[in-house]
Amino acid sequence: MTDPQGRDAILDLLGVLAYGELSAFDRMAADARLAPNLGLRASLAEIAALEINHYAALAQRIRELGGDPVVAMAPFVTAVDTFHRRTEPSTWGEVLVKTFVGDGLAADFYREVALFVDEPTRILVNESLADSESSAFAIEQVQQLISRDATAAARLSLWGRRLVGEAISQSQQVAAERDALAELIIRGTGDLTGVAALIGRITDRHMKRMTEIGLSN
Amino acid sequence: MTDPQGRDAILDLLGVLAYGELSAFDRMAADARLAPNLGLRASLAEIAALEINHYAALAQRIRELGGDPVVAMAPFVTAVDTFHRRTEPSTWGEVLVKTFVGDGLAADFYREVALFVDEPTRILVNESLADSESSAFAIEQVQQLISRDATAAARLSLWGRRLVGEAISQSQQVAAERDALAELIIRGTGDLTGVAALIGRITDRHMKRMTEIGLSN
Repeated sequence: MTDPQGRDAILDLLGVLAYGELSAFDRMAADARLAPNLGLRASLAEIAALEINHYAALAQRIRELGGDPVVAMAPFVTAVDTFHRRTEPSTWGEVLVKTFVGDGLAADFYREVALFVDEPTRILVNESLADSESSAFAIEQVQQLISRDATAAARLSLWGRRLVGEAISQSQQVAAERDALAELIIRGTGDLTGVAALIGRITDRHMKRMTEIGLSN
Repeated sequence: MTDPQGRDAILDLLGVLAYGELSAFDRMAADARLAPNLGLRASLAEIAALEINHYAALAQRIRELGGDPVVAMAPFVTAVDTFHRRTEPSTWGEVLVKTFVGDGLAADFYREVALFVDEPTRILVNESLADSESSAFAIEQVQQLISRDATAAARLSLWGRRLVGEAISQSQQVAAERDALAELIIRGTGDLTGVAALIGRITDRHMKRMTEIGLSN
């Protein structure tokens, strides 16, 4: 972490992760109102609260590196907000699939970046990964929903494709605009086509997860 | 806790507190979007997350007593939702004052009930009380706001009166409908006019707090 360019890239990375967690919290808290009953609403609220703990840890790491969380997050607000605006759930099933898909994509991205960040950041990234409660809850609920309603699987599969499509589109936008971050990922993945390769691996794992819970790609 | 009536009353009490925390989370998460910048938005989101930790602890205690959190909360949904619908903040200053006033009223109510509940419930109530971070944040922010804008104090004082008025109105509604809970409070406060006396003490402390941060009653 001695070269300023490397530090800038890490601050970019922490910034996008931090704003991702903050806005995930925000959206999940709002989406919890679509829950069919108080118990499920409370479960989603508890998962949303986990995102804030991740946010707080990421913001803390930004400060340790001499950065300001607000400044670090600012470049990513438009892309993340656009993703959420274009993928606003209108049913409880869509909320669950968004939680599951979003969680899975985020976990894969954390796993990828953990390979090429400094040690304290890696520890933090792995801690964020350890919370898999939200996935377990969403998987169980989606499976129940599909088993009760045969048409739900087709609709939610379509929704899953839309979610991953929007996520890729916004990620490419960010990579195109943030040179230091793109450079970090390209160097980290050791590949000339680093960003594209990373998105490819994350998409593959997303498709496997969709199949596993009974949704098609 | 051997008489079923006493247990019902405690479940009522835990139910109203649990739904209060769950809906406070919900509203604060939504209100965070009125923040003038990302840093303040993140601060309010972190406070909202604390409410969910309280909710989780209260729900756990309900289960320990053989109750179901959803069933215990159900009778209080209308009153609490009505309170929030009638006190929806439209500015960041109103969000801060609602956080400060709501927090203060809740803390006073927790302090009152701690005097007459069983030991495990009392420990839980005192733990919920220990989180005073939200008040510290809101006080500091309200004071900054008043110092920058002389007209804000008058508008926010009016808002504070409306908040406490709606809170009292909904509390009286709940007390009139929930005999066991009202009886618990009357017996607990050892006063024939128990509920009214309790509301009176809470209102007094609210007025002192308003004066302390530079708002009038």
